[in-house]
Amino acid sequence: MSSPDVLNPIPLPNTVAAYWLSQLREKTPLIHCLTNQVVQNFTANVLLAIGASPAMVVAKQEAAEFSAIAGGLLVNVGTLNDIQIESMTLAVSAANVAGVPWVLDPVAVGGLAYRTDFCRDLLNLKPAAIRGNASEIMALAGFSSSGRGVDSADDSRAALPAAIRLAQRSGAVVAVTGEVDYVTDGKTCYALPFGDVLMTRVVGTGCALSAVVAAFIASGDENRLEQVATACMVMAICGGAAAMVSNGPGSFTPLFLDGLYNLQPQQLIGKTL
Amino acid sequence: MSSPDVLNPIPLPNTVAAYWLSQLREKTPLIHCLTNQVVQNFTANVLLAIGASPAMVVAKQEAAEFSAIAGGLLVNVGTLNDIQIESMTLAVSAANVAGVPWVLDPVAVGGLAYRTDFCRDLLNLKPAAIRGNASEIMALAGFSSSGRGVDSADDSRAALPAAIRLAQRSGAVVAVTGEVDYVTDGKTCYALPFGDVLMTRVVGTGCALSAVVAAFIASGDENRLEQVATACMVMAICGGAAAMVSNGPGSFTPLFLDGLYNLQPQQLIGKTL
Amino acid sequence: MSSPDVLNPIPLPNTVAAYWLSQLREKTPLIHCLTNQVVQNFTANVLLAIGASPAMVVAKQEAAEFSAIAGGLLVNVGTLNDIQIESMTLAVSAANVAGVPWVLDPVAVGGLAYRTDFCRDLLNLKPAAIRGNASEIMALAGFSSSGRGVDSADDSRAALPAAIRLAQRSGAVVAVTGEVDYVTDGKTCYALPFGDVLMTRVVGTGCALSAVVAAFIASGDENRLEQVATACMVMAICGGAAAMVSNGPGSFTPLFLDGLYNLQPQQLIGKTL
Repeated sequence: MSSPDVLNPIPLPNTVAAYWLSQLREKTPLIHCLTNQVVQNFTANVLLAIGASPAMVVAKQEAAEFSAIAGGLLVNVGTLNDIQIESMTLAVSAANVAGVPWVLDPVAVGGLAYRTDFCRDLLNLKPAAIRGNASEIMALAGFSSSGRGVDSADDSRAALPAAIRLAQRSGAVVAVTGEVDYVTDGKTCYALPFGDVLMTRVVGTGCALSAVVAAFIASGDENRLEQVATACMVMAICGGAAAMVSNGPGSFTPLFLDGLYNLQPQQLIGKTL
Repeated sequence: MSSPDVLNPIPLPNTVAAYWLSQLREKTPLIHCLTNQVVQNFTANVLLAIGASPAMVVAKQEAAEFSAIAGGLLVNVGTLNDIQIESMTLAVSAANVAGVPWVLDPVAVGGLAYRTDFCRDLLNLKPAAIRGNASEIMALAGFSSSGRGVDSADDSRAALPAAIRLAQRSGAVVAVTGEVDYVTDGKTCYALPFGDVLMTRVVGTGCALSAVVAAFIASGDENRLEQVATACMVMAICGGAAAMVSNGPGSFTPLFLDGLYNLQPQQLIGKTL
Repeated sequence: MSSPDVLNPIPLPNTVAAYWLSQLREKTPLIHCLTNQVVQNFTANVLLAIGASPAMVVAKQEAAEFSAIAGGLLVNVGTLNDIQIESMTLAVSAANVAGVPWVLDPVAVGGLAYRTDFCRDLLNLKPAAIRGNASEIMALAGFSSSGRGVDSADDSRAALPAAIRLAQRSGAVVAVTGEVDYVTDGKTCYALPFGDVLMTRVVGTGCALSAVVAAFIASGDENRLEQVATACMVMAICGGAAAMVSNGPGSFTPLFLDGLYNLQPQQLIGKTL
C-alpha cells in the first residue's frame, strides 16, 4: 500500500534543481550510452549541450571495461538485438560491481515479448533509475496498458500507481513522462509540468532525457530522487522554451540544444513553478 | 508493350493530393522502418513531422510481430547486412500475411551483387511500392545503368521505361525520383516536377521519401498510385520551399521539417501545377 | 631523431589550401565510410556539404568491392565490433590493392585494449593519413596519455612529438587536432590555429574531419601533407565562423554545414593566417 503522500505529487524546489545542475556542470560526468540506433547522435548532442560527456562503446569486448570507469550508464532497448543484449548485460554487471549507477529506458516494453522479458530480467540488476512513458512504465510494473510502439496511449498521471509500485519493488527512482512528468522513489513524488507537446514530434527527446537522468545521478549519490526530477525539469523547461519560439519540430532541435547549453543554474531559481 | 498513355506523364490533381494528406493526418499511421544506419534519425523526424508515427524494431525476434501490427513497412537496403536480411525477410512475410503494405527502397542496387540479389528476391514478395533513383530503378528492372553508390548517374526521365516495366512485372507502384519524379503503376504515370537540387546535398531525403510513401499507402488502399504520387509531391514541394529560403544544406533541414509539419491540405490546392 | 624543422610548425599557404579545395570541388570524390554509429548522418552531411559524395557500405560481402571503386576510404573505430572488424579489414585490403588511399580515425584508442590492438594491426596496412586527438595519437604512437573516451585530456601541441614519430614509422600523414591542429609527414609540420572550442560540444566534428581528410586525399596524390592540412584548415575556418554567429551547439550545426557548402576557394586566399 502506498502512503497518501506519494499519491499527491509535489513541486520540485527550484533551488534544489539549481544545485544539481551546478553539480553536473562542475563534474562533467562521462556517460556510457548503450542506446538505440535512431537516437545516438541526438543523445550525444544533448549530453554535450547540458555539460556531460557521452561515449557509446558497444562491443562485448569493451562494454564492461568502459562502464566500470564511466560516471553513469544508460541502457535503452529501442533497437534491441542479441548482440546488444550481451553487451548490455556485461556493462550493467560491471557498473554494479564498480558502483556506477545505471538507468533503464524500457522503450516499447509491453507489446513485444523479447524486449519485455529482457527488461524484466534487468530489473533484478538494480537500476538506479527507470525513465519511460506511461505505457512502458505500466507494462514494466505488470499493469495492463495500451502502448503502440514508442508512443504512449496512456496518460502519465494514470501511470502514477504503476510508477510507485515499480519504484518500491525495484528500488529505482522511476520517472514516468508525458504532458506532466512524475518522478518517485515510492515514498515521495515530484510533478514536473513544464513540457510541450511539440517534443513528441521530435524523435529521441524521451531517450535523450534518460541519458540526462544518467548524467544527473552520476553527479553524486546524495539524493537520486531530486537528481532525476531535476533532469526532467531541465529538459522540459528547455523544451518548453524552445517550442515557444520555434516554427515546428525542425527549428525546435537547434533551439533546444542551444537552450540546454546556455541554461544557468540561477535561471532555474527565477522560474515560478 | 506499354500503352501510349503511360509514356505521357500527367500532373497529379491538387485536390487528390490534398485528400490523401488529410487522410494521413487523420490516421497517423504507424510505420515500421527497417532502414539504413545513416538516415534513421532523419527518417523518423520526417515521419513525425508529416504526421505519421515511426518505429524501428530491428531484432529477428520482434520484426515480424511488429510488422503485422504496423500500418506500413519500409525496407531500405542502404547498409544491408546478414542480420538485416533475416529481419527484413521475416518482417515482409509477416506484413504480407497481415495485409500490411510494404515499400522497397533499393539503395545502390545495380553495382553490388549482394544487395542486388536480395532486392530481386524481395520483388517476389510483392512490394506495394518501390522508390528509387534512376540508376536503381533501371538496375532493378534489368536495364543497364551507370549508378555510383547512392548517386544516380542517370536522369529520372530516361528511367521511365524501366519504371513502367518494373511496375508491370512486380505489381508495385514504382516511383523514380530526380529533378522530376515519375510515379507509375504500369498503366498511368504522374510527373511531379517540384523538387530542388539542394535536396541531393542532404543525406536521406530519398530514403525519407520512401518512408513517407509507406505512410501514405498505409492511410488506405483505395488508390496507391495517387498515394505514392502524393508522397512525392508533398516532399518535393516542402523541399523546394525550404530550399528557396535556406542558405545551404544545413539550414535546409530545420526548414524542411517545419514545412512538413505546418503543411495544410488546403495549401496544396492553392498550388499551381 | 626529428629534424629541427618539423618541431617548428609552419602555416599552410592560403593559395595551397585554395587549390586543393578547388580540386575537391571539381572531382567530387566518392568516399567510402566505415565509421561509428553515432556520427554517420553528420559525416555524410559534412561530405555532401564540402562537395564529396559519401557512401556507407558495411557488409562483409560488399565492403571490399566498394572500397576498390571509391576515391577514398575512412575507417573510424568509435563503435567497433567484431562485424566491423571483418568488414574494415576487407575494405582496407581491397583499397590497398586498388591504390585507394584510406584514413584511420583511432577513436578512444589507448584505454581500451580491443580497439587499440585492432588499430595497431591496421598501422601495418599503410594508412595514407591518421587523424586523432592528442590522447589518441599519443597512445597509437606508444606514448603515455590520459584520454577519457573520445575526449582528449592532452593538448595537441604536447602530442606533436608523438605525431611526428607516428608519421615516420607508419608512412602516413598524421593530423593531431585540438585548439590548434598539427599536420605532419614526419619531416614538415603545418599548424592550423582556426578552430573554436564550441566544436567540442557537437558530437562528430572530429570524426567528420577524418572523412573530409579522406575526401581531400582522394582528390589526387601529388601532396598528401598539403591535402590533409587543407582538410583541417577548411573545417576549422568554417567551424570558427559558424561558432562566431551561433548561439550554441544547436544553431552551430546548420551554420557549419551551410558554411562548408558556400565556401569558395578564393575566400581562403583572402584569409590572413
